[in-house]
This record gives sequence, C-alpha cells and structure tokens, in this order.
Amino acid sequence: MTSIPSVRPAPAAFGDPVSAVDTPALLVELGAFERNIARMAAFAKEKGVRLRPHGKTHKCATIARAQIDAGAVGVCCQKVSEAEAFVAGGVEDVLVSNEIVMPSKLRRLAALTAKARIGVCVDHPRGLEALIAAAPEAARPIDVYIELDVGGGRCGIERIEDGLRLMDRIGAARNLALAGIQAYQGSAQHLRKPAERRAAIEEAVRRVVALREALTKHGAGQLIVTGAGTGTFYLEAASGVYDEIQPGSYIFMDRDYGDNEWAAEAWRFENSLFLLTTVMSRRASHAVVDAGHKSHGVDSGMPAVAGRADLLYDRPSDEHGEIFPATPQAVLPELGQQLRLIPGHCDPTVNLHDWLVGIRDGHVAALWPIEARGAFS
Amino acid sequence: MTSIPSVRPAPAAFGDPVSAVDTPALLVELGAFERNIARMAAFAKEKGVRLRPHGKTHKCATIARAQIDAGAVGVCCQKVSEAEAFVAGGVEDVLVSNEIVMPSKLRRLAALTAKARIGVCVDHPRGLEALIAAAPEAARPIDVYIELDVGGGRCGIERIEDGLRLMDRIGAARNLALAGIQAYQGSAQHLRKPAERRAAIEEAVRRVVALREALTKHGAGQLIVTGAGTGTFYLEAASGVYDEIQPGSYIFMDRDYGDNEWAAEAWRFENSLFLLTTVMSRRASHAVVDAGHKSHGVDSGMPAVAGRADLLYDRPSDEHGEIFPATPQAVLPELGQQLRLIPGHCDPTVNLHDWLVGIRDGHVAALWPIEARGAFS
Repeated sequence: MTSIPSVRPAPAAFGDPVSAVDTPALLVELGAFERNIARMAAFAKEKGVRLRPHGKTHKCATIARAQIDAGAVGVCCQKVSEAEAFVAGGVEDVLVSNEIVMPSKLRRLAALTAKARIGVCVDHPRGLEALIAAAPEAARPIDVYIELDVGGGRCGIERIEDGLRLMDRIGAARNLALAGIQAYQGSAQHLRKPAERRAAIEEAVRRVVALREALTKHGAGQLIVTGAGTGTFYLEAASGVYDEIQPGSYIFMDRDYGDNEWAAEAWRFENSLFLLTTVMSRRASHAVVDAGHKSHGVDSGMPAVAGRADLLYDRPSDEHGEIFPATPQAVLPELGQQLRLIPGHCDPTVNLHDWLVGIRDGHVAALWPIEARGAFS
Repeated sequence: MTSIPSVRPAPAAFGDPVSAVDTPALLVELGAFERNIARMAAFAKEKGVRLRPHGKTHKCATIARAQIDAGAVGVCCQKVSEAEAFVAGGVEDVLVSNEIVMPSKLRRLAALTAKARIGVCVDHPRGLEALIAAAPEAARPIDVYIELDVGGGRCGIERIEDGLRLMDRIGAARNLALAGIQAYQGSAQHLRKPAERRAAIEEAVRRVVALREALTKHGAGQLIVTGAGTGTFYLEAASGVYDEIQPGSYIFMDRDYGDNEWAAEAWRFENSLFLLTTVMSRRASHAVVDAGHKSHGVDSGMPAVAGRADLLYDRPSDEHGEIFPATPQAVLPELGQQLRLIPGHCDPTVNLHDWLVGIRDGHVAALWPIEARGAFS
C-alpha cells in the first residue's frame, strides 16, 4: 500500500483548451498576471522602494523567480517550510515575516543560510533567546527584524523600550544582525474606503517613526522598514519611511480586494486567478457546481462568478457550491457547463491546490507546481 | 528547479513525545479513535444495517481499511480522484455518493472497476447519458444509485417520475446496474436539537418510501437505500427503510458536532482529532498561535481549545489565530507552549494536511499519509 502522501497529477496538459481542464482547477490568465507583475515592479522602481513580494499568496517558486526577474529583491513568507520550498526553488533572499519560536524550526531556518540570505522577525525576548540558541548553526548572519504592532493588534511589540531591549540582545548575539523593522498593517488592507486605509497607514507610519528614531538614537545602524500589502502599498511607498513593500495578492487579486473602493491615487490590479468549476447537478431553481470548501477559501466570503453579475454563488459545502440567479432575467448554466469563480480570498485558495494552470488565448500554456502548498509548519 | 509539487515531510517521527511534533499538526488520539470505529461497527451489526463510512472525512486508505476490517462493506467518497486514492490503497468497494458528469472523469471511474466494485449517483438525464457513454469501458457493471433530494435542497431528483425515467434508461444501458437510492439529508446533521433531526429524517424516510415503492412497482429488483451522517445515523438505522448508513465524522468528531444536543437515543462519539499548535507571540491581552486558515477550516465556526474552557480561539488569519481569556481567572498560555484545538469542521481540516499523527500515551505511535488530500477533482 502507499506509504507517503500522493502527489496530485496536473489537472490539464499543455495545449489543452480550457474546456478540457479537469475541474475544479485554478487558472491563471497569463496576460493579466504578467501585467500585474510588471506594474508593481514599475511602481516600486519609480517610487524608489524595494519590492519584496509576499510568497504566502502563491507558494510557487516559478512565480517568485518571475517577480525577482522583474526587479524584486527577494520574497517574504510566513513559515520555515515555505522558506525551504522557495530556497529549494532557487530563491536566494527570503524574509520570514513572522515570529518563529520552536527550536527545531529555528535550526532548519539557520540551515537555509547555506544557500540564501535569510531574515526573520522577533517580538518577544523568549523567542529571541530561542533564535540566539539556533543561530550558531547558521552559515552567515541571519537578518533580524523587530516586528512592531502598527495597529493590527496581533503580533509585534507595543512599547519602544521592548524594541531597545531586543536590539541590545541581538547586537550581542553571534550570527544575528539587526536588519530593520517589520511593520505590516494587515487589518488595514480590506478597509473598504481609501480614506480609512490612509488613516490606518498614517498611524502605522507614526509608530514606525517613533521606534526607528529610538533605535537609531540607541545606536542602530541602517534600518530597513518593511511591510505593506496590496490594499495599501501605495501609501507606505509614499510615506518616505518604508524602504520596502511586501504586497502579495496583487498578482492574482480576489473578490475581497475587488470589494475595496479604489480612489484615484490607489492602485487596482487585474483579476488573473480563477477557479474553474463545472455544473454537476441542475434543477429549475439552481445549479450545483463541483467546487466547495475543499477547493476554495470562504473565510473572506463567497466567490464571485466571473463575467456573470447575474449569478450568485452561495451555500458552499465541502465539495459543492450552489449557483442562484441574481436577477429575474438570469439564465442558469446547464449541466456540464463550466464557470469561472473569482475566489473570495486568494491565499487560502491557492494553498488547497497543487497546480496553477496558466492560460493564454484559451489554452493551457503553463503548469506551475505550488511547491509550498501545505507548507504551514 | 522542482517540476512537481512537493510531498510534505511527516511532522514527527515514531516514538516522539507530542512536545516534539512540528506544529501545526493533526493528532489522532488512537484510543478514542479505535473506540469510535468499534462502536459504530457494533451499532451497525446490532441494527442489521450495512456500514459504508464516508471517506471524505479522512481521505486516508489506512483508516478506510481499518473501518472495513471492523465490518464496513466499503467506503463512500465524493470525487473520482478520491476513489482512485482509495482503490490504490486497497479498498475494493467504493461508492462515489455524488454526481459525476465530465466525460474524462467518467472514463477514469469506469477504469476503476478493473480493481474494485464501483458505485456512482445520478440525478439528471444528461448526466446519465454521459455515464452511459463511458460505461462500455468498465470491466464490470457500475452500480448506479438514483439520488433523491430528501430535504437538503441541493442535489437529487425531486419528482418520482424523473426517477422512473432514469431507471428505464439505466436498465437499457450496457455495464450499468440500478443498485439503489442515495438519500443523504446533509442539512439535518447539524440541527442542534434531537427532535429537529428526528423530524428531518422522518421526512426523508417518507420521501424514500414513496420513490422506492414507485421504482419497485415499475419493476426494479432489490434496491439498497443508502445515506445518513454522524448527526442522524441512529434515526436512519431505526427507520426500517435504510439498508446502509454513511457516517463519516464519527471517527474524529469536531466542535460543530460537539455543539449538537444529544438525547438519550442519540449517539455521541469521542473527540479523537486535535490540531496541535504552538504559541508564537504573546502579550498581556492575548496569545497568538501558529494555526490559521491554512491548517484548519473555519467554515463551521471557530475551533475549541481542548481541555481549556477558559480560553477562546478567535480572529483567525491565514497563518495565525489568537487566544483570548474566556473567564476573568483564565491564565493565557506562555510563548512556546502547545495547545490542542478541536477543529470547527473536521473534513476540510483534514484536507489541508498530508499526515495524521497517531498518538498513544503521549507519544507518536502512527503516521498515516492522507492519500486523497487535495483530491477534489
């Protein structure tokens, strides 16, 4: 019998028309995807900020390399196992924009320095001690970022004096280098109104400036301030305080980002990610499609039906979703018909899949393995 | 660079204490798990109904074989790719308790008959025609179950005359055999009060009897009525109408099933599935653990913290969850401390993992690959 988990076969072959793709499957419209990559790279270059896209969105080394080829300095990710997948896939600069405290994970992180520049965040003296214990195994110094709570209220230090104490301890440790400040305002990304997002980032910038000034006065050298996501990156980039931006979702977008309002100064990217699904049951009142919780994340709400504002996806269950008319005139899709869903939330959706199916002119033009799928440890 | 998706390494080694398990990870307490398997098997034997546990819950061939060893006739699942994983893992009787309409999937389903008895559901003449087109490739007849909507309002026929037409067409087709009626009342499983569940299953039974009588009068031979889940199986088994029950979650249970009320006649199973997580950030107000959307499903609500009614898990994000005090006396866990979460919903949680870590006496005693993880096609 099998003794290791299966590697799932790709849901399509090169050259297949979309109609032949085994559903549910994640499609990437390559034209929109490439324009998104290029636009963000051009934005960062124009603004003079470093671009370090978040790899938690795509978990795919092919995409990380494309982002770096377009000018990104490297990627960030949230987990040591993700960093391992990116380094194995040829990425030479990875920031784990998160706290890592388990000794076994920290030893694995230190081992990655043999092949890549590695950064990690700290926000607690006990976590820093665990990192210090593992650091002697590193082949070169690990970049340490002090995470600051800039308004999200989740991780990060709250008080400047805690940052100064962490700085002192980092400075005294072997194989650790204080690299900067992690300052991501996650809860600002989906505030719907541009003015709300602006206010949240103004507050974040205020907190960052206070910490940076204190660290500098305390003797820190050059510090990189890094953070920002797809909902606010244009604000951090314009702040004059952030040196590096970490947007992730801009390559794909999703229904939740689509629901943000985007003012003139904001930057809205194109939807390039679609969940292809097939109608597998049909009656007068509704159609049932073959995509439920196990193939897309509903943590940020329901997916939209691409190109069909007259249809609603609702009542998701593990393997099913139901399609209802949104208007009196709507014509429900027939049994066997394909629909494209715009996932409610791209990151957890991608994490459910093993493959991204790249589409150009209606045919399969790329098959990208999602190497860090399930890499949550 | 890599060209296929990674197989994730197991999060532990045999004999490890739980404290050494890499988190987040899914633990199975083997004592409770084995008692759950044995109890349901004994129940089915006593009641004289066939037990066909649902494999969509565990997606693990090792568990399917354990269920069959305890007396189950086989398993059911929802997808062809799941059936492929179970057949590859040695299961010789698999019912896909769902409609399959894509021609390529139906050819794969037919191919499985070379190694196993295979069943599938139909609820639409066009879907049946697609099955008929693929059936000549089968090595032996495929069991066809007419799915009846017994109150869930999702899939299944609504009118008896539609069932008679499907029966006629199945009877005339090569390599198809009308095996019975699929009658699963999914929306009844989490009705909180036993009386509500009882009323829902009484209605389901009423509908099943009407269809079965009509099919029999129309000339059908022996028909197997199959359905039921962990919230209601004792009702279907007592009905005298259901021949086979399909509970899945009973092996693991979850917070959502735990929130059901269980009357004297009901059967409540033990929690055996736990998501092990580690505190990776900590402040006075809350602790942050390393388990978010990517390692457990929140579609049925938040997980509970096992053994700690004084703690609440909330504010899940992709890789984080926050732990808050539920009482004024609660003491938050310290940085680095492990907690066990009872997932909100076991099925989509298991689907996020590659391994189940079996625990006995606080140590790793089994490592089971989840072969059908991600098998949603």
